[in-house]
Amino acid sequence: MKMASNSSVLPKPLQGIIPPMITPLLDRETLDVAGLERLIEHILGGGVHGLFILGTTGEAPSLSYRLRHELIDRACEQVNGRVPVLVGITDTCFTESINIANKARDAGAQAVVLAPPYYFPAGQAELLEYIEHLMSELPLPLFLYNMPSLTKAVFEPQTVRAAADIDGIVGLKDSSGNMVYFHQLQSLLKNHPDFALLIGREELLAETVLLGGHGGVSGGANFYPKLYVDLYNAACARDLPRIETLHEKVMQISSAIYHVGRYESSYLKGLKCTLSCLGVCSDFLAEPFHRFRSTERDVIRRHLEELGIVKKQ
Amino acid sequence: MKMASNSSVLPKPLQGIIPPMITPLLDRETLDVAGLERLIEHILGGGVHGLFILGTTGEAPSLSYRLRHELIDRACEQVNGRVPVLVGITDTCFTESINIANKARDAGAQAVVLAPPYYFPAGQAELLEYIEHLMSELPLPLFLYNMPSLTKAVFEPQTVRAAADIDGIVGLKDSSGNMVYFHQLQSLLKNHPDFALLIGREELLAETVLLGGHGGVSGGANFYPKLYVDLYNAACARDLPRIETLHEKVMQISSAIYHVGRYESSYLKGLKCTLSCLGVCSDFLAEPFHRFRSTERDVIRRHLEELGIVKKQ
Amino acid sequence: MKMASNSSVLPKPLQGIIPPMITPLLDRETLDVAGLERLIEHILGGGVHGLFILGTTGEAPSLSYRLRHELIDRACEQVNGRVPVLVGITDTCFTESINIANKARDAGAQAVVLAPPYYFPAGQAELLEYIEHLMSELPLPLFLYNMPSLTKAVFEPQTVRAAADIDGIVGLKDSSGNMVYFHQLQSLLKNHPDFALLIGREELLAETVLLGGHGGVSGGANFYPKLYVDLYNAACARDLPRIETLHEKVMQISSAIYHVGRYESSYLKGLKCTLSCLGVCSDFLAEPFHRFRSTERDVIRRHLEELGIVKKQ
Amino acid sequence: MKMASNSSVLPKPLQGIIPPMITPLLDRETLDVAGLERLIEHILGGGVHGLFILGTTGEAPSLSYRLRHELIDRACEQVNGRVPVLVGITDTCFTESINIANKARDAGAQAVVLAPPYYFPAGQAELLEYIEHLMSELPLPLFLYNMPSLTKAVFEPQTVRAAADIDGIVGLKDSSGNMVYFHQLQSLLKNHPDFALLIGREELLAETVLLGGHGGVSGGANFYPKLYVDLYNAACARDLPRIETLHEKVMQISSAIYHVGRYESSYLKGLKCTLSCLGVCSDFLAEPFHRFRSTERDVIRRHLEELGIVKKQ
Repeated sequence: MKMASNSSVLPKPLQGIIPPMITPLLDRETLDVAGLERLIEHILGGGVHGLFILGTTGEAPSLSYRLRHELIDRACEQVNGRVPVLVGITDTCFTESINIANKARDAGAQAVVLAPPYYFPAGQAELLEYIEHLMSELPLPLFLYNMPSLTKAVFEPQTVRAAADIDGIVGLKDSSGNMVYFHQLQSLLKNHPDFALLIGREELLAETVLLGGHGGVSGGANFYPKLYVDLYNAACARDLPRIETLHEKVMQISSAIYHVGRYESSYLKGLKCTLSCLGVCSDFLAEPFHRFRSTERDVIRRHLEELGIVKKQ
Repeated sequence: MKMASNSSVLPKPLQGIIPPMITPLLDRETLDVAGLERLIEHILGGGVHGLFILGTTGEAPSLSYRLRHELIDRACEQVNGRVPVLVGITDTCFTESINIANKARDAGAQAVVLAPPYYFPAGQAELLEYIEHLMSELPLPLFLYNMPSLTKAVFEPQTVRAAADIDGIVGLKDSSGNMVYFHQLQSLLKNHPDFALLIGREELLAETVLLGGHGGVSGGANFYPKLYVDLYNAACARDLPRIETLHEKVMQISSAIYHVGRYESSYLKGLKCTLSCLGVCSDFLAEPFHRFRSTERDVIRRHLEELGIVKKQ
Repeated sequence: MKMASNSSVLPKPLQGIIPPMITPLLDRETLDVAGLERLIEHILGGGVHGLFILGTTGEAPSLSYRLRHELIDRACEQVNGRVPVLVGITDTCFTESINIANKARDAGAQAVVLAPPYYFPAGQAELLEYIEHLMSELPLPLFLYNMPSLTKAVFEPQTVRAAADIDGIVGLKDSSGNMVYFHQLQSLLKNHPDFALLIGREELLAETVLLGGHGGVSGGANFYPKLYVDLYNAACARDLPRIETLHEKVMQISSAIYHVGRYESSYLKGLKCTLSCLGVCSDFLAEPFHRFRSTERDVIRRHLEELGIVKKQ
Repeated sequence: MKMASNSSVLPKPLQGIIPPMITPLLDRETLDVAGLERLIEHILGGGVHGLFILGTTGEAPSLSYRLRHELIDRACEQVNGRVPVLVGITDTCFTESINIANKARDAGAQAVVLAPPYYFPAGQAELLEYIEHLMSELPLPLFLYNMPSLTKAVFEPQTVRAAADIDGIVGLKDSSGNMVYFHQLQSLLKNHPDFALLIGREELLAETVLLGGHGGVSGGANFYPKLYVDLYNAACARDLPRIETLHEKVMQISSAIYHVGRYESSYLKGLKCTLSCLGVCSDFLAEPFHRFRSTERDVIRRHLEELGIVKKQ
């Protein structure tokens, strides 16, 4: 089984749509196992190019290590080498990051993904030294993950430039929403064609690919994977009229699904609620969040009907 | 003379490159009059579609009202109706904004530009009421100016949506650097084809125009107007290979010219230093900033040589 | 008349309660002249040690220069030398700061007060150079004003330390709310006994004076000057039981009056509404703010009754 | 042994100096066991009223769970019931918080301490619900820990007010540095005399106790416990001349020891370096930080000599 799943090889650079998978839960410590299987098939059915588990969208920091290990095993087994699996190992503790990475390697994942330690904000020199130490113990290729709103520290362009020369660091996912930063990285790394530059915010996928970026880690691909794959392909083909139509759909989803309710957790709640409305998996959220109550769920369902994602009842 | 300058009509929507002009100064209270004339001819010679004076790049908040009035007169006279002139009226005091707007109208400008009052941060309802009050007294069409890093308040998408229905509000310039926000505006305003959406950060010009935005308020167009006009035209023509080349040049300028020195004022200092190196105008800055000293000036000059903007000595 | 008002001498260091006066307005461009006279008498009747006009509480940045000049004249005339008058000259433009300072000197004020220019954030070296330039043209002694939430720039302790050696800089008012910062200043300036260290937030007045600070610029002293004067005196006398009682009253006022409504402007609106409920002056606010509507006014009135500041109806 | 350590009873409210202990390390996964024993004796020798392990100062988020468990065991055994031991259980994962709390109970600790989950920022309603869920599973009394600069979320005053009514929540440690907030808590909780309000920043210890707070979680008490105990006692006795002297010493330590070097980690590095200079324990820091190099160490040593904390060589 592990053999089989190892049969997927990580492209250099990794390109396309690599959805950041939500983690289906029945309760605080129980995976929604059937939901997880349906979800992976739903996502892979859309033609995606990889799967990223245990990221921000996967609520990784809110999950116990036991649960994370179980998820890694089950996800790798279900994917079974059809696409590369990337596993988030971001942690405030160095050793725990290594532990998850080893688990990911054992389960047959192809790469790991790391944002800066998120309790103490490190300086750039500290961050680079930390990555160097980590790389000497990591069993899999590494993607950096820039997520300053949640981790406090930015991977500044010159730090990424230096990291790109470290053996085993193969790309970066940027979720800052700052396209000036992303273009700075593209410009600085133009002589590193194998270093993947992936965009987190799906609203920025079109321009990312049009201007030479390698793809997107698009949350909406949890429930509508084909849309983001189609947009990626249209952007590769530089088919601007088609890009315009698909990008507008992406923007409508963003407005309709990710901004219901009062809190910053709207994105996560909207995603899980949508998957529940579609019958894919449970919408239980890990603490400190809780699923939408019926008022918000009704809003989401109505929006999904208007978007043509679920049929009107 | 005023007649002549009034001959320029404001297109609906305003499109193209509208450089945010720096303000050439000899000292704290003295315009560099000859420099100003050369600068305007230099910019207009690049084929730009408008001129925006007294914005952030124009150091407007640091200039006395006397100096601002003199600049409005001289700039409008020099432009003489060849392109629309937009005048910044952002102020913490309502009445002073109106005063500058009246001066702009008298001098023959075509429109005014307003960011939120920047001392006290207003809520969205307060901001909308403020704009409504202002519009009832403004003598010229208004562009909103989103610049949250300096004004604290954002013009949130729903506020812009409401403002776009107010007679006389004709567009928005976004300098937030947040393209998700910009795409939200585009999506919300898709039924307002006459409402101009312009991007402030020149690093985002390519994608703005490719995805349906109307143009850019590009600081680099002070010294290299043709580059931004060419990029705008290439983006209108959807000529992606050419866009890629020009966009990379824009990124190189951004890295080389706007990030010298330790302070947030690097952008302003780099712009004025460049224009001084080119012999266009003085590099004196209004308080609390000061021109680059010779070390930084030498760095800028070297970068300009490497970029082919000034000849090697 | 000017002679008379010049008869007040600025103590070295300035000590006690120096209320930051609100600016009574009838409309956007009209002082509530009768209200202003009543307000000054109301404040001075409480035994305060100075009067600070045109600060943040005075909505200075929202007032036209014409209005500010009128206020300076009228306030100085009304005070008539009974206590020192301090005039805010904070501005984004160097020349306008000097202009207001000259006006203040002509009207008989004793000192001026300056926060950093608040549009462009200056670095510390830039800020110190800016102050040095300003001091060479200022006609009156200067108090620095630390207000980072609204001006972006902090006067860092080492900058204040350097400024304290410049002739004519006589103190600092800190409205950061950061007592660690305040204690750092006290420690750094312990050999400058003539340099006044005043606290802006009235909730911190007790500890400021107990631990060696010189007094407070307490907003609540607009309507209840005696409370803050009493607390200041109790703290000078180190009468801890009395301090405790008065400090608790200060905290109740803060909770009850400054946090009604949804916006950051609650403090200003609460202050003006209270003075209107007391019959002292109008509650009109300068743009972009507007007076409390009747719902919030009723809450304020009820709280004032509970606090025993107005009689129950 | 566990019996013995359980013999310490948690006072209601907890009062005095409860140092946030650093975690002595030999390397990333090895406690400095001998150093830990010396450190605990050094701290307890100063007369402190409790010991808080695995807080921010203890680098808890950077330590593996294995290491945290070992520390809990060893610290409780060494303290052996002489003072209450408080154990930090802050975590992004609910279950892991419970696991550490259970470990703390088994080892004989008297209470646990919890800051908000620090990856996803929760809203106040979410935070309160999270605490309620947690309390139903916690085996020990709980102190809330307000640390917004590192956890993003604040425990807002009304949330604390509600939490204080939950059985088992016995106090709050505030490390925000915002004394207005602290006074708001004191005012809101004046009818909860058993709810301990402790201050994190040692620069604010004097005023905290003078104005009715219960004590401090003072980092400097790792190396100079007697100073903070003396200051606490002087403040209880309202001996203002003595408070002034001791408070000034606290400020000197803060300036001299916690602000060496360029990074936000200066406080942690300064503390550990000082303990190493004193021969108490190793100065190894957990990733992503690293101990001071010899330049900074020399600065610290010189400052310690000037402060009279180590003898001049």
